[in-house]
Amino acid sequence: MMQTKQIPPASSAYAYPLLIKNILMSSQRHLQQHRINYRGQDQYDYQGFQKRVCKLANLLTGLGVKAGDTVAVMDWDSHRYLEAYFAVPMIGAVLHHVNVRLSPEQIAYTMNHAEDKLVMVHEDFLPLVETTQSLLKTVESYVLLAENGPVDTSLPISGEYEQLMGSMHDGYEFPDFDENSIATTFYTTGTTGNPKGVYFSHRQLVLHTLQAVGTLASASGEAVINVDSVYMPLTPMFHVHAWGIPYVATMLGVKQVYPGRYEPQKILELIRANRVTISHCVPTILQMVLAAAKAQGVRFDGWKVCIGGSALTPTLALQAMSEGINIFTGYGMSETCPIMSLSMLNAEILNMEGAEQVRYRTMAGTPAGMVDLRIQASDGQFLPHDGESMGEIVVRAPWLTQGYFKEPEKSEELWLGGWLHTGDIGVISPDGFLEIKDRIKDVIKTGGEWVSSLELETLICESPYIADVAVIGVPDDEWGERPVATVVLATPGTAFSKELIREHLMQHVNSGRINKWWIPEQVDVVDQLPTTSVGKVDKKKIRSMALPA
Amino acid sequence: MMQTKQIPPASSAYAYPLLIKNILMSSQRHLQQHRINYRGQDQYDYQGFQKRVCKLANLLTGLGVKAGDTVAVMDWDSHRYLEAYFAVPMIGAVLHHVNVRLSPEQIAYTMNHAEDKLVMVHEDFLPLVETTQSLLKTVESYVLLAENGPVDTSLPISGEYEQLMGSMHDGYEFPDFDENSIATTFYTTGTTGNPKGVYFSHRQLVLHTLQAVGTLASASGEAVINVDSVYMPLTPMFHVHAWGIPYVATMLGVKQVYPGRYEPQKILELIRANRVTISHCVPTILQMVLAAAKAQGVRFDGWKVCIGGSALTPTLALQAMSEGINIFTGYGMSETCPIMSLSMLNAEILNMEGAEQVRYRTMAGTPAGMVDLRIQASDGQFLPHDGESMGEIVVRAPWLTQGYFKEPEKSEELWLGGWLHTGDIGVISPDGFLEIKDRIKDVIKTGGEWVSSLELETLICESPYIADVAVIGVPDDEWGERPVATVVLATPGTAFSKELIREHLMQHVNSGRINKWWIPEQVDVVDQLPTTSVGKVDKKKIRSMALPA
Repeated sequence: MMQTKQIPPASSAYAYPLLIKNILMSSQRHLQQHRINYRGQDQYDYQGFQKRVCKLANLLTGLGVKAGDTVAVMDWDSHRYLEAYFAVPMIGAVLHHVNVRLSPEQIAYTMNHAEDKLVMVHEDFLPLVETTQSLLKTVESYVLLAENGPVDTSLPISGEYEQLMGSMHDGYEFPDFDENSIATTFYTTGTTGNPKGVYFSHRQLVLHTLQAVGTLASASGEAVINVDSVYMPLTPMFHVHAWGIPYVATMLGVKQVYPGRYEPQKILELIRANRVTISHCVPTILQMVLAAAKAQGVRFDGWKVCIGGSALTPTLALQAMSEGINIFTGYGMSETCPIMSLSMLNAEILNMEGAEQVRYRTMAGTPAGMVDLRIQASDGQFLPHDGESMGEIVVRAPWLTQGYFKEPEKSEELWLGGWLHTGDIGVISPDGFLEIKDRIKDVIKTGGEWVSSLELETLICESPYIADVAVIGVPDDEWGERPVATVVLATPGTAFSKELIREHLMQHVNSGRINKWWIPEQVDVVDQLPTTSVGKVDKKKIRSMALPA
Repeated sequence: MMQTKQIPPASSAYAYPLLIKNILMSSQRHLQQHRINYRGQDQYDYQGFQKRVCKLANLLTGLGVKAGDTVAVMDWDSHRYLEAYFAVPMIGAVLHHVNVRLSPEQIAYTMNHAEDKLVMVHEDFLPLVETTQSLLKTVESYVLLAENGPVDTSLPISGEYEQLMGSMHDGYEFPDFDENSIATTFYTTGTTGNPKGVYFSHRQLVLHTLQAVGTLASASGEAVINVDSVYMPLTPMFHVHAWGIPYVATMLGVKQVYPGRYEPQKILELIRANRVTISHCVPTILQMVLAAAKAQGVRFDGWKVCIGGSALTPTLALQAMSEGINIFTGYGMSETCPIMSLSMLNAEILNMEGAEQVRYRTMAGTPAGMVDLRIQASDGQFLPHDGESMGEIVVRAPWLTQGYFKEPEKSEELWLGGWLHTGDIGVISPDGFLEIKDRIKDVIKTGGEWVSSLELETLICESPYIADVAVIGVPDDEWGERPVATVVLATPGTAFSKELIREHLMQHVNSGRINKWWIPEQVDVVDQLPTTSVGKVDKKKIRSMALPA
């Protein structure tokens, strides 16, 4: 490395490590009466929150949790979970965000692999843990998170959360330690093999938070988040740090609303009663909320929603916008903490007409601050940002997992050549906007050309006959692969022929947008598309369904 | 230190160091046609700026500058200086921001002390450098920054900037290196002794930038800065990184306007022609601009101005607000990069009436994100935030100088007990707002009590007879010290008696705001208050003037 100038610090100088406790400390700047709310129940202001974090730290250390230990949480989105977001890493322990949607065997696998020592478990997940308890090799104690006091369980619990918290001291001297200490871990499921553990340090989470505040607040026109915002997550808190926004909201000291288990009617109520201004979710959740609202004639003016996890379709974007929602796209994944890019619209785009503006809102957008995002050909060459060249999206940022826990080979694959490989195929336009075209594993290679399953899905979805669609490639002796569409009809039970799809797509062939060989010969109708544990369309399952018998 | 969990990264994983090049890289996200302007002359967009930074890197390395070397800049606020803000640290060298307002001997002292190797010098400062050249022990070459082509000089210059830049290649592979490498240095002058060198690393400047973007953009109501802003500094770029905002503006890719040498008429023109939205300056500069504007009936709607360096008086704040300026206070110093706190108003304060809101705008405000700011009694105890307890402001943040260069004793004094000692006396209100009461060395100890010279100045300034005032303590046999006021009359040449001050202050004695012993017995009238090289009132000089003959 180059020989630069470094000056030894004064021996008394404080070498400030980037620790999660600094995020909580920053919240104390904002002594307006912003409060934290759980399912409509007011909890406390930020001074109260700080005390609760101290109490939880005392509770955990009292139960024998030490720096370097791992604490698992299994809860819906709650103030309790937010307390764990801070207290667990702030005592030097690791917070394992358990994905409660995995199968019981997978959950047990992740808990053993992460070496969980203590488990904070919500009553709703007791049956799950009770059945897998015998498989758990490292867990020493359990704390019950209950809604209305203790409930019966066969688990050897140390007590119920609120009862235990009640007797704790509300002060704690959080120590300094290395900013590269691991703060959080969670597991990502691929199509094959065991779940893989990603992990993030205090430094990474602080930098992710600082970046997210700056990127979201500095948006053109109205800030996406600022100190006046009201935040409610609609992405589970176990899912990639709820996109990191609980840390962002806390740093800004804004009102936070935690909705518990997602119930459309409850969510509607909470948004209205608390005038929620900013949320984030996968398309499915927004569809659910919009459907519930439509039944009641509710609108959402002033609500900003960041969509991620699956592609935001123009149809859903337009529907949301017509209900008053300021909708945009976030691009990230478990390995990336998660924020890589956001469809932050500049003044020019905000002046565009409906469909053209929607196109930008549904793209993955521009990289967040400090993110070096590029597209790479299969030979490792970087491709131009010309709006045409398709390549794998690779990325460098200060908050990417530095590997998969105890998986050296997969770690090196992830970081091949010093760039994190997202497994996504994208195009970058001359104005810097990233558009995701496909997953590498979903892109369809037919006759030596690439067909983007995602783009084909978008076009098919525009047909008035179609409510939902998934396109996959199936092996073909002549062409290598051929696209197959699995569709959900807009009006179930009506007559349908694949010719309707062919006719619909032919207009895009005629306009030159796609080639004729993009048109699938096989179109299967289903009642509902199968989804994975995190709500994404399960193409693996569709592939097994779509294979010619 | 505690034993936390750390996981070795994958051997291919990219360990992202926080480097200034990442700020420039971030600017490339914003490919709107935002441009950089110098004194009304359009220069380039951000892609053009990146190329200029590459050219300067090639120019410097071509002239023999190596990583670890120090490059001095002596220029007015310009696009050239902005290029140096990036290119010099990005090649691993150290940028010495020369304070051109120091005496020639002091400048030579700082250049020798910093071990400057190459000097980029504006033609206006040639006489200064020509006379001190014989004193310079480490300088090997000079580059001339000229407004209209080469000018004559006795300095052995390598060439004129634009001529040299013209032939440079516009690409450069900026290397990675340790984020703790020193990026910048400059000198702060105290009342005694030689100027002291402070220094900042790449990591510190990146963190300062991330924090400033977030804090300024997330303000209540309208963002102070966002991607639509137009920025123009009115604090010299050699002065504490122009408060760090050139880095902030570049990270956001906004339009930037550099005014060159400060001329009131030119400044007015630039603000109007470019619709500048955000600037920062010391009170004197704002007064100058307001006076010029008044003569022409110009208003400043949409202009946000952050005031620092000296106290913002309620009178000036009100005057600025009546001209349409959104005015607020920033608190920082050379040692702190500089941002410590900002008078960011929350929604509640923004709803307050004139005078009450002005009170908040003129306070030092709330700490910026990640800043741990406290007040300390002389015995080192932290004092409560009760709006009454006065103590020294001490601070921890991730961007504070880790000492004074080659001054080990002063470094340890600065960092006594692991907290950076600001030398300022402050009070923190229960709602978290910091108010600066005085400098430790200016606070007047009379009869065992502390009198804040700053507060007394504010009160005296409210008198219609007074335009400006400085209060100092002079030794007194009976009381230890007594306050002495040096005033500038509102209407020069009119009759004036110190009884007018006594009468004016008696109302504040009667209301209980101050004690009777605050009233100065000695009031001296001057035409103008003497100022230091950075435009602050020079109390040292006033003390020597005010001493009884």
